[in-house]
Amino acid sequence: MATQTFTTRESQLLTRDELRARLQQVGQERYHHRHPFHLLMHEGRLNRGQLQAWALNRYYYQSRIPLKDAIILSRSEDRDFRVAWRKRIVDHDGDQTHEGGIERWLRLGEATGLSRDLVRSGEGVLPATRYAVDAYLDLVKNRTFLEAVASSLTELFSRDLIALRMDALRKHYPWLSGGLDYFTARLTQAPEDAKFAFDYVAANAETRSQQEATIAALRRKCDILWAQLDALHFAYVEPGWPPPGAFVPQGDARGTA
Amino acid sequence: MATQTFTTRESQLLTRDELRARLQQVGQERYHHRHPFHLLMHEGRLNRGQLQAWALNRYYYQSRIPLKDAIILSRSEDRDFRVAWRKRIVDHDGDQTHEGGIERWLRLGEATGLSRDLVRSGEGVLPATRYAVDAYLDLVKNRTFLEAVASSLTELFSRDLIALRMDALRKHYPWLSGGLDYFTARLTQAPEDAKFAFDYVAANAETRSQQEATIAALRRKCDILWAQLDALHFAYVEPGWPPPGAFVPQGDARGTA
Repeated sequence: MATQTFTTRESQLLTRDELRARLQQVGQERYHHRHPFHLLMHEGRLNRGQLQAWALNRYYYQSRIPLKDAIILSRSEDRDFRVAWRKRIVDHDGDQTHEGGIERWLRLGEATGLSRDLVRSGEGVLPATRYAVDAYLDLVKNRTFLEAVASSLTELFSRDLIALRMDALRKHYPWLSGGLDYFTARLTQAPEDAKFAFDYVAANAETRSQQEATIAALRRKCDILWAQLDALHFAYVEPGWPPPGAFVPQGDARGTA
Repeated sequence: MATQTFTTRESQLLTRDELRARLQQVGQERYHHRHPFHLLMHEGRLNRGQLQAWALNRYYYQSRIPLKDAIILSRSEDRDFRVAWRKRIVDHDGDQTHEGGIERWLRLGEATGLSRDLVRSGEGVLPATRYAVDAYLDLVKNRTFLEAVASSLTELFSRDLIALRMDALRKHYPWLSGGLDYFTARLTQAPEDAKFAFDYVAANAETRSQQEATIAALRRKCDILWAQLDALHFAYVEPGWPPPGAFVPQGDARGTA
């Protein structure tokens, strides 16, 4: 009887609003706005060296986003989908005359006091950062196309986090204020991207199990973001053990921000 | 002694001009301008049904080109390379307001008398066409990045073939004249693309064995183009045996063009 009820409930297709609510719920529970490292950041309790470590490691994530989007592009046989998705690559790479998100993140790195060349080189990035980011590329390459698209749905949550973060960074780390262009651009890009991805997922998850797979893909993506902050926290906050070869903040950067 | 001589010769780095000459030589020997199917086409000896089969099968190739280029994009960690290579995807897919090469090829299909929907559907495409085209995607996915880029170097030869073909098609198949926009666009796109790819290969093949690998990749790409015409010729010219499920020209299309 219980099994019967469960099966009936599980097999029923979610409405568009129910699907959106389930995805939102994943965000509330698992998105990295709840991670202690971000809470410390937003409370002004990270020092410059910790922000450097964050910018350096997160650059590895940023640098892989256009590759992730090109993988998704390469899996779509639908020209209209490809034209729409290509926007993401343009947003990150820019073109011959416009900078993109990667350039903007490099400037954030410079604002923390790191050299552009160090950030670009990938030297000192935590191995655990690479594992998590590479797991994202693996997901979009090897899971179903629907799951690959759904994994980008963290964009549903990023606008609020970015708005909060920009206020917090300006307030607590005013020396960073010149490096926030990346976030400014994402305030409009992320909601556009999220809308497209949600519409795609809502239209193309045609069975309940496909809907559940999209929700699971979003959970996996949240895990990937969370794991990056776990690694940062362990290496640079508590206990504060950067592994061999990892970035080590220098001099003044180790004190209070 | 002979081995010694051979080793010395093989291990010597080719100059840029020598590399270009070796690549040109591959084109002279193996590019599909020499294939009997194309010779018949250019002599006006194909009928409408055979041109339909060509347009239909070649569409499968065209439809995979942006996927091939997205795979290459997804393999490059160099933002400037990605920005330059993205042009190819734009050329083929177009954007919200500009048509691309895929749309233009659909119009060529329509000019042969096929319905747009049939061409787009991929129904009736020869299995051997798919195998050859899919081998191209496999090449750019699984070989070295240098070989993936080098495989596009057939663009070194395509301008001359397209110029010749446009004259021949206009002369022998005037009813096709309204469908040649694809070729017009490629007259300028292909040489730009070829220049970029050659410059990349010349700069990045740093050893003789890497140079030989780029030459081999171009040979493989020529084989892929050639195999598509072999399949067309076997199915629609001589002996003229389309396999089960393949496109069969209807009615008048089977006579002289």
